[in-house]
Amino acid sequence: MKYGEQGGAIGELVGAPNRGLATMFVMMNAARLAVGMQGVAVAERATQRAIAYAKERLQGRASTAEGPQMSPIIEHPDVRRMLLTMKGLTQASRMICVATAAALDVAHRGSNAADTSAAAHRAALLTPIAKAFSTDASIEVSSLGVQVHGGMGFVEETGAAQHLRDARILPIYEGTNGIQAIDLVFRKLPLEGGAVVKAYISELAEIAKQAVQSNRAELGMMGERLGAAVKALQTATVAIGEALQTKPDAALAVATPYLRLFGLTAGGAYLAKGALAVGAASHRVTVARYFAEALLTEAPGLAVTVSGAADSVLNDEKVFA
Amino acid sequence: MKYGEQGGAIGELVGAPNRGLATMFVMMNAARLAVGMQGVAVAERATQRAIAYAKERLQGRASTAEGPQMSPIIEHPDVRRMLLTMKGLTQASRMICVATAAALDVAHRGSNAADTSAAAHRAALLTPIAKAFSTDASIEVSSLGVQVHGGMGFVEETGAAQHLRDARILPIYEGTNGIQAIDLVFRKLPLEGGAVVKAYISELAEIAKQAVQSNRAELGMMGERLGAAVKALQTATVAIGEALQTKPDAALAVATPYLRLFGLTAGGAYLAKGALAVGAASHRVTVARYFAEALLTEAPGLAVTVSGAADSVLNDEKVFA
Repeated sequence: MKYGEQGGAIGELVGAPNRGLATMFVMMNAARLAVGMQGVAVAERATQRAIAYAKERLQGRASTAEGPQMSPIIEHPDVRRMLLTMKGLTQASRMICVATAAALDVAHRGSNAADTSAAAHRAALLTPIAKAFSTDASIEVSSLGVQVHGGMGFVEETGAAQHLRDARILPIYEGTNGIQAIDLVFRKLPLEGGAVVKAYISELAEIAKQAVQSNRAELGMMGERLGAAVKALQTATVAIGEALQTKPDAALAVATPYLRLFGLTAGGAYLAKGALAVGAASHRVTVARYFAEALLTEAPGLAVTVSGAADSVLNDEKVFA
Repeated sequence: MKYGEQGGAIGELVGAPNRGLATMFVMMNAARLAVGMQGVAVAERATQRAIAYAKERLQGRASTAEGPQMSPIIEHPDVRRMLLTMKGLTQASRMICVATAAALDVAHRGSNAADTSAAAHRAALLTPIAKAFSTDASIEVSSLGVQVHGGMGFVEETGAAQHLRDARILPIYEGTNGIQAIDLVFRKLPLEGGAVVKAYISELAEIAKQAVQSNRAELGMMGERLGAAVKALQTATVAIGEALQTKPDAALAVATPYLRLFGLTAGGAYLAKGALAVGAASHRVTVARYFAEALLTEAPGLAVTVSGAADSVLNDEKVFA
């Protein structure tokens, strides 16, 4: 492309003078949520495709099989585990994105200033998580989708591999996921002197409390695991907040595991809220419980990383020489 | 391909009659270790490429920058974190594969029957971990390699994306990683009534103990994190062993997180052993400490998943209907 060959290019100012970057970020924030939803969409399609294939493909005999025939692989526990992981991460990502969108709606259309302001802050807090957690999850989910298909996923006939290729750009564009993590820690945690994140985590803690108190056998350890994750998020938020004040490079060094912890916990809480709202025999209960018992278990360890791994990242020994 | 068009195909027996499957597995076990090493090779190349790019590519200013110029991205803490993760997973995988190969050497060439038998059992135990942990890690590492390159990784000029495509088949062929996990739990843990795995974990525990007792400041919390991981592996080994006896489907449901826990802990222990063998200012110390403080933190949560998530996987509610 060449501009200005015929006597100079003429620029036209769009919007007010000196508001360019701020204006660009109106677009950028919307784009970040939209990319998060791209992650959800790719993950959802990968999940649907893997479930359909796993019902069709026969291999081995599951313990639940009645005749001598081979079983569809969906009956093998390890395949169910993969499919539940795909469903759980996809639903958690979707709920985080929808919560962000709902906050934006109230921010734009709320009936009073207190509501719109609180909602704008909530949307600002959640946008980097919606973008980064959902797109990281889309890679994990679409990669599992290939795995469920076996060799048929690696070759191109089934379409499973295309989802992974489509997902791989999402953590890169509209601000890499590393940039989202820095945005979360350096610009969003300090909002209103920390009151925005504190109020949000309190809501998650309340959901965990309700889950424990519900005492419903079919929820298994869902409430306990969510409670442990929320506690880990609280600890990590304090730790990274202190780093932010005293040694910003240390906060930069662990911002990504902090965002992962935040997204897992928020997603687990939304799934739990959904499970609490419905009866015993529901897909939502199954997925929420699996997510808590199999995936949210990662949360306490992430808090240990956030609290303790910065020095080893910043170690100036010439490890990359 | 068509056989037998000119009067019938003639087969020739290779090896002894009725030993076909056993003979095939001689090849297969060697192939499994070889595929694990493919994972190491792809991960190593992805890591080298990402480090080279991160030293070259200028973007932003790191806090350590002295002039007004943009910094090479390797100076940004989040990029260092990604590169250290790549290095750590690659080195841990390599060490697991090398330990497996060393055991095979002794099994084939040891000077007495007790040594060769113990080494053969060790090799049998480690083979599924060498295959599955290393190839799962190669996907994680090569995906991070794309991320370090940003948009230049997603397009094809740099070669970063090819590594991820090359890695993606590795958890699928020569027995999927799900099959490796089942092999580990159902065939390898019961070897010699459990004595093989018990002796191996004791060795890992001894390394953790030495790391704690070494009291070297530059090791940070390496010994403590490794100790917690070994303890998690012990707990999970007991839990999955009980499931194996009483409810095999429950063992199948959590075999994959168990293998991940095993590989992380073994890899962390080998890295620690290397760090203990060298002086303070060494790449090995930096990588081993980072691995323990940032990645081994996942281990205790994996033990919780292994001990507690089977019911939610096996839940027979029609979640995939």
